[in-house]
Amino acid sequence: MFMLQLTSRIPLARSFIIPRGISISQSRPKCQITRFSGVSGLASQLTNDEVAQIEGQIKSKGDEIRALKDSGADKATVKPFVEELLSLKAKLEPPAEPKKKQEVGKKGGKKGGNNKSDDDDYITPRETDYSTWYSDVIRHSAMAESSPTRGAMIIKPWGMSIWELLREDMDKRIKNEDVENCYFPLLIPMSFLTKEAEHVEGFAKECAVVTHHRLTGSPDDPTNLIADPAAELEEPLIIRPTSETIIWNSFRKWITSHRDLPLKINQWANVLRWELRTRPFLRTSEFLWQEGHTAHATAEGASEDAVKMIGVYEDFCSDMLAMPTITGKKSPSERFAGAEETYTIEAMMQNGWCLQSGTSHDLGQSFGKAFDVTFQASDSSISPVYGTSWGVTTRLIGAMIMTHSDDSGLVLPPKIAPKQVVIVPIPAKKNDEEGAEKLKASLDSLVKGLTERGVRVKVDDRDYLRNGAKYFEWERKGVPLRIEIGPRDVKNDVCVFKWRKWKEDKESVRLEDAADKVVEELEQYQEYLLDNARARLAGGTRLDVTYDEMKSLLVNDEASQYPGAGLFLVPWKCDAANEEKIKEECKATLRCYPKDVNDMKMFEGKKCFFSGEPADRMALFGRAF
Amino acid sequence: MFMLQLTSRIPLARSFIIPRGISISQSRPKCQITRFSGVSGLASQLTNDEVAQIEGQIKSKGDEIRALKDSGADKATVKPFVEELLSLKAKLEPPAEPKKKQEVGKKGGKKGGNNKSDDDDYITPRETDYSTWYSDVIRHSAMAESSPTRGAMIIKPWGMSIWELLREDMDKRIKNEDVENCYFPLLIPMSFLTKEAEHVEGFAKECAVVTHHRLTGSPDDPTNLIADPAAELEEPLIIRPTSETIIWNSFRKWITSHRDLPLKINQWANVLRWELRTRPFLRTSEFLWQEGHTAHATAEGASEDAVKMIGVYEDFCSDMLAMPTITGKKSPSERFAGAEETYTIEAMMQNGWCLQSGTSHDLGQSFGKAFDVTFQASDSSISPVYGTSWGVTTRLIGAMIMTHSDDSGLVLPPKIAPKQVVIVPIPAKKNDEEGAEKLKASLDSLVKGLTERGVRVKVDDRDYLRNGAKYFEWERKGVPLRIEIGPRDVKNDVCVFKWRKWKEDKESVRLEDAADKVVEELEQYQEYLLDNARARLAGGTRLDVTYDEMKSLLVNDEASQYPGAGLFLVPWKCDAANEEKIKEECKATLRCYPKDVNDMKMFEGKKCFFSGEPADRMALFGRAF
Repeated sequence: MFMLQLTSRIPLARSFIIPRGISISQSRPKCQITRFSGVSGLASQLTNDEVAQIEGQIKSKGDEIRALKDSGADKATVKPFVEELLSLKAKLEPPAEPKKKQEVGKKGGKKGGNNKSDDDDYITPRETDYSTWYSDVIRHSAMAESSPTRGAMIIKPWGMSIWELLREDMDKRIKNEDVENCYFPLLIPMSFLTKEAEHVEGFAKECAVVTHHRLTGSPDDPTNLIADPAAELEEPLIIRPTSETIIWNSFRKWITSHRDLPLKINQWANVLRWELRTRPFLRTSEFLWQEGHTAHATAEGASEDAVKMIGVYEDFCSDMLAMPTITGKKSPSERFAGAEETYTIEAMMQNGWCLQSGTSHDLGQSFGKAFDVTFQASDSSISPVYGTSWGVTTRLIGAMIMTHSDDSGLVLPPKIAPKQVVIVPIPAKKNDEEGAEKLKASLDSLVKGLTERGVRVKVDDRDYLRNGAKYFEWERKGVPLRIEIGPRDVKNDVCVFKWRKWKEDKESVRLEDAADKVVEELEQYQEYLLDNARARLAGGTRLDVTYDEMKSLLVNDEASQYPGAGLFLVPWKCDAANEEKIKEECKATLRCYPKDVNDMKMFEGKKCFFSGEPADRMALFGRAF
Repeated sequence: MFMLQLTSRIPLARSFIIPRGISISQSRPKCQITRFSGVSGLASQLTNDEVAQIEGQIKSKGDEIRALKDSGADKATVKPFVEELLSLKAKLEPPAEPKKKQEVGKKGGKKGGNNKSDDDDYITPRETDYSTWYSDVIRHSAMAESSPTRGAMIIKPWGMSIWELLREDMDKRIKNEDVENCYFPLLIPMSFLTKEAEHVEGFAKECAVVTHHRLTGSPDDPTNLIADPAAELEEPLIIRPTSETIIWNSFRKWITSHRDLPLKINQWANVLRWELRTRPFLRTSEFLWQEGHTAHATAEGASEDAVKMIGVYEDFCSDMLAMPTITGKKSPSERFAGAEETYTIEAMMQNGWCLQSGTSHDLGQSFGKAFDVTFQASDSSISPVYGTSWGVTTRLIGAMIMTHSDDSGLVLPPKIAPKQVVIVPIPAKKNDEEGAEKLKASLDSLVKGLTERGVRVKVDDRDYLRNGAKYFEWERKGVPLRIEIGPRDVKNDVCVFKWRKWKEDKESVRLEDAADKVVEELEQYQEYLLDNARARLAGGTRLDVTYDEMKSLLVNDEASQYPGAGLFLVPWKCDAANEEKIKEECKATLRCYPKDVNDMKMFEGKKCFFSGEPADRMALFGRAF
């Protein structure tokens, strides 16, 4: 055991001050360090080995802090550890990666206004500002960034790979329900939206309207483009906010007989809604989604399908995203316009807010009637079809981020991680050719073993980055497992496992066992994240709370607060006016009538927490994104 | 051998007349038929067995005709066979499937104007009108249909599955080249398009312009929606016709050092160009595509990448679509605006027209300069990056259709077929429970064997359709192999193979060998289609032709003609003005300078076929879609 005398220095941009000279125990025997003085810019005077040592310490310290937090330690207990961590990091200022960027960043203001925040490698802790933490996690994991188009984001490769994994798996689940994929036009004639007034009311007003089909040079300045006045459309076109209108128009043509039913189609598409306040993944003007649309001969057929699909979403969130959800029905006032019943999965984010993560609508005959889609039954009678629609969006990525990530950045469940394992080889010394060869052989064999087992693995052999910078980068990107392997490890026939969350210690693993162990432990890690999230959801949902208690807890609850007031599961007498009053007073909405507790009739013998009348169901209230 | 006395009747919509009473030999011992008189509507008086027999005959006759045509038989030889086929078909008029539609089609004008053509099951032969044939094939295979949005199509499940198979395979090939997927916004600020004047000139004028972000009720009629005048955008937004402008705007932020290069990204997206004349898959206002964009530190890097990607496309077309292409460079006047070199793959359709099926552009520094994207080299010098872009679209599906399909409908290469095998079980007689059980057991085992081998198989057990109607439907959908299996087959431990094209005879196959044989023969069938297409391309490309000969061949060559004049590979002296003259006189364009013949310097010692000057390359001329 070593005792460290630490002083600290943090960038000025961080708006809090760390006291100097805090003494703290350092219990990792692997980190053979004696003493540092906290001099800014010391990194440049350090040898590579010394730097690697400090980087190791930083990692260990971070792990300790996370373990403490996970074990429920309070702020006061954690604080000195955090200070020590910041102090360690200060030894390496300016860090290697940003330095490179500074060197090449001589092009002046070319990068535009948000240059500073792009280069800054600081993640705001959740406790400081949960909303900023969320943005920081996305930026530093390079999942997405803002775009020059208002309210739309650019999904970068790391975010896109996650979406592709999600889509691939969800697509299989959907096709498994005998649904076929189609593709309908992006643009919908405006007249279509007037067909179903109720539908329009609920959806389509804030949307992008295409009025012209050509650009031309402006009369005063031909190099300046304008919409050509001579190319105005007779009927404007709308960019789809959702595709019910155009799809049901086809259903009318496609469906004549009961033999055409059920008809189940789905499309993966981009849609656009003119949102005023946007947040990456959670709410953007353009987003990616799947929209399923089905038609059935019977009310039961539609109802069963709507229930089945919300179940598909629930299973997906649990299996793939390690994200527990509360499944239930929406109250009448929160239903999709035109739906007889809306089913929802609601997830609890780490700030205690709810996130509606997927919905499935039992449309009854409303669209069948509105779009005149009828079928002839085997007894020759003709009647309107019953319908459903259901969808999930890129929002699921936001939900996943806010379920698992921590103050060190993104945390990815293995099943949705573009790379499940990153291997960082520690190069042999320059003249050690034999060591280099053996390292390469062991590395190749390890990669082969992992790839054969279907593990998505990345070898980070960039020669211009220090190991610590690599660790830092992959940690922020949420890669579940890092494997370090150097000449000394190879001599001992081992490599070193370090998990992003979960096990706090590094672990030495025999090379011959490594690939199997990875597979086994990736599964355990996935379970661990799910269990953690389940515990948080259970712990964050209050029962037996009075309305006044809820109100006082929610009165100052904002998205930026962490941890927030959480969710409230209460006995309820269904009443839209009371729901509206609660919304006004608490900003909380009725998220759903959860299925499980209502199936158990937990409300029986209880009184509505708001009206005092006999409760007829359990309701989940909470703030929501 | 049987002699058939035939009379014929064809629907009035078919605009040619078949003489009655032609005598013709019928050589299939399997079809145990004696004699029919060609009475309209006879089908309703036939027993099921009789109907099945006629259906079998129709199939056999169709196969004979295709075999004759494939063997190069002339029209006169084929004609009586066609007449016999039509006569056979007439026995079953009205056919089972359309009859059902007529029964339930009592809803009057509900289906809209093109009701008739939707229900009509006639495919116009290529020789009658190639363009109509193409539309008929698409309609009757249910790949796509027109939409209420001008110029946009609805891709139906069969077409969408093909696109998904195509996308999945192409995506792997692209990622194999170290390209990462991203997603950029659909809408692009109008000002972006003015940044690269040359780029705008080539591309962006005919595009959809978004000018408003809200709908509202019209002042005179609040139930009628209009674009809200209060919600006009300060700067209009363009629906991407291609994404260079917005992607290079990000490149400027993402690239600073040579370490950031090469940067290779791709996106799968919908794009929109306001096309005046559209054809499904070949040219639609909205279409689906992938667009790859790369940045490099050197001119060679960009140039190699552009060449490599056109090679990826060429291999894909050959491997997956069984479609040979001619790879080459575009002439300067046909280059992508801003490109230093445009590489293209050109395919020959069955009417002899060319179809540009994919392009790859070496952009040099033009976009690096236009968008101020620079990088710092290791020697600290700063210079603009070099770029490429490359893409393929849903047009590839149109190319595939027109390469393989025939007068019986779609023909799909197995690798791109949503279903590679359709099994049509012939049910046991009503009281034959043992037969039914054995049939089910054999069927299940066959399906299991095929599925285990990765074969995409469909069992068509619809009980309300006759076998013949099923055969007819899957033939039109282009499924490579049909397997028939009935109680008698099961007793003999066999099933019956019938290929969509290729082998003309039905073949009895031992059940235990069937799955392996399917796998082996699907590969052979894929090769067969590719060989056929190669032979057609070779046969359809003329060498050693004078300009006057070409002109006289092309003067009446229209898309609707089959087979058309084909392509012309000629010695050429590069000259844009002459190219333009040829375009005016022949409507033919210079498709490319084909790589292989130019690598061989086939032009050496020859004179330009137009100017008579010494040729400096070989050029491919032709009409093009």
